[in-house]
Amino acid sequence: MDLTFLGTSGGTPTKTRNVTGLALAHGRPRQWYLIDCGEGTQHRLLHTPLSVMQLRAIFITHVHGDHTFGLPGLLTSASMLGRTEPLHLVAPRPVQAFVAAALANSDSTLGYDLVHQDSEAPGFQWQDDAVSVTAVPLSHRVPCHAFVFTERNPERRLCQARLIADGIEPGPAWGELQRGRDLVLDDGRVLYSDDYTEIARPARKIVVGGDNDSPERLAAACTGAQVLVHEATYTQAVADRVGSWPQHSSAAQVARFAQSAALPNLVLTHFSSRYQDRPGARPHIGELEAEARQWYRGNLVLARDLATFRLEKDLTLRDVTPPAGRGRTRPDAGIQPPP
Amino acid sequence: MDLTFLGTSGGTPTKTRNVTGLALAHGRPRQWYLIDCGEGTQHRLLHTPLSVMQLRAIFITHVHGDHTFGLPGLLTSASMLGRTEPLHLVAPRPVQAFVAAALANSDSTLGYDLVHQDSEAPGFQWQDDAVSVTAVPLSHRVPCHAFVFTERNPERRLCQARLIADGIEPGPAWGELQRGRDLVLDDGRVLYSDDYTEIARPARKIVVGGDNDSPERLAAACTGAQVLVHEATYTQAVADRVGSWPQHSSAAQVARFAQSAALPNLVLTHFSSRYQDRPGARPHIGELEAEARQWYRGNLVLARDLATFRLEKDLTLRDVTPPAGRGRTRPDAGIQPPP
Repeated sequence: MDLTFLGTSGGTPTKTRNVTGLALAHGRPRQWYLIDCGEGTQHRLLHTPLSVMQLRAIFITHVHGDHTFGLPGLLTSASMLGRTEPLHLVAPRPVQAFVAAALANSDSTLGYDLVHQDSEAPGFQWQDDAVSVTAVPLSHRVPCHAFVFTERNPERRLCQARLIADGIEPGPAWGELQRGRDLVLDDGRVLYSDDYTEIARPARKIVVGGDNDSPERLAAACTGAQVLVHEATYTQAVADRVGSWPQHSSAAQVARFAQSAALPNLVLTHFSSRYQDRPGARPHIGELEAEARQWYRGNLVLARDLATFRLEKDLTLRDVTPPAGRGRTRPDAGIQPPP
Repeated sequence: MDLTFLGTSGGTPTKTRNVTGLALAHGRPRQWYLIDCGEGTQHRLLHTPLSVMQLRAIFITHVHGDHTFGLPGLLTSASMLGRTEPLHLVAPRPVQAFVAAALANSDSTLGYDLVHQDSEAPGFQWQDDAVSVTAVPLSHRVPCHAFVFTERNPERRLCQARLIADGIEPGPAWGELQRGRDLVLDDGRVLYSDDYTEIARPARKIVVGGDNDSPERLAAACTGAQVLVHEATYTQAVADRVGSWPQHSSAAQVARFAQSAALPNLVLTHFSSRYQDRPGARPHIGELEAEARQWYRGNLVLARDLATFRLEKDLTLRDVTPPAGRGRTRPDAGIQPPP
């Protein structure tokens, strides 16, 4: 499960960081999901191997523009590229109204079905063959939700001793059972996959927060999760100066929560645009990392635009960002001309 | 009068070119105007000396998303930066509806007045102290207008012989008259600036086209203009293959028109995203230039993202793009943190 950050700045873009967008690639080759879609998300995608043609669903945490204003461009570009597969848009209702207004007022039609689902409906749940997704209400100045991605259908291991004991010889039946399929033998016996296989490992689980001033809201969701992606808009000192009304988290706040929840991996993002990346510049983004390390002893990562972190099947999180340019470039030829 | 291209791609962005946006800087230091605002225009601005704080007005040629989807982000970022000066948005009515829907559905309010003006109203005209702007209807698959920018108040030259002949000695009165102001002397005589000064040079005039398949619609507007900025979406061969329905111009079409109109400077832009910039890549953007040169003998320029062309007072057009990095960078510190 690969997390690629398409934007790590909060509120406004900087010269090096875009506003929020996060790709989660999982399942069939190149299949992926998008969480939030700030302006310029489609531009960032041009510098990754991800294509809007293989995008399965978009999840929007809340209505703010730095998480939504990239939707009209991404959706219409997908259409211009020739997409015909339905695309799911899981979002608060006002976001759906915004998209509808953008299309209606720009002479745009989509060449595919945009399937709306209200992310704020009680009991929200979404799934396909690769992931199941639930939502957790957060605390922000507008309704906001985290999304919990749990891997579906992790691979099965055959219980070979049991198969042989029951007289089922190695052959096509073994393959069917391993793929999770029940089957009927020629002699009429019914074999249930669950009886002859076991799930080889825990399902991977990633929690992606939205804007939120109360990380502890995610305590239950983080049980059994390997990764929490959470905003850390500023240091505690800046948060104290700004005051509580924006309802964002400090690095310290999130780190304390992650430590108390015994989370193995914490990825911070959505940094205030005041923070600089250049060595020596002030305030430097390293201040957020230093503050978080005071409280959190697990694997701490500060997200960077276009960085990719892979949650392996062994539940470790690795930075697999390719060296600049290698393997990440997608020729412009991949973009069809506008009509 | 400086033209800075913020995007030169039509329809969809490429890795090197953004969708349409053009800045015209003129008048008071750093004062500027924006023509069209595709997604990512605010991102491009971060790499120029232009600030949304000094933006006077936005002119939108037509409703298509590659000319409008950057508006919500640019407008809200200006507010987050602390803008309080009113901002004029000259646009078709559906664009105003799109902006209103974007703000209403993203919990956004602007800290300044956004003054709407319908660009499609009969007799449209806009002006401030530095420029006057008129619109010319074009031929596209939705209503589309070119904007004609004419310099106002070019500097006056004193008719010194006449002043001395009338007994007006060098002094503060001379300065007032040169600034175009009439005045009353101590002896009661009224001096009219027009009587003692003359405009030193022709007013500069720039025509900025929108999407358009009939450049000849601009014939009258181009009379006395020094620069035409016009789309050249593809070569004639590609235009013939694509067919007429997108209603774009070929490089040959625009070049023939510019030659017939005896325009001294022609700037082509809005190139199909199929065209490549990298040396050796195909189809190369140089094909558009080569085709245009077959028909046009004036000063031909292909726009590049972040290139700046200056129309001097002597009516010559010069490429004044600074070397990469020098003078164009604006520290991220210039961006205030999000609320």
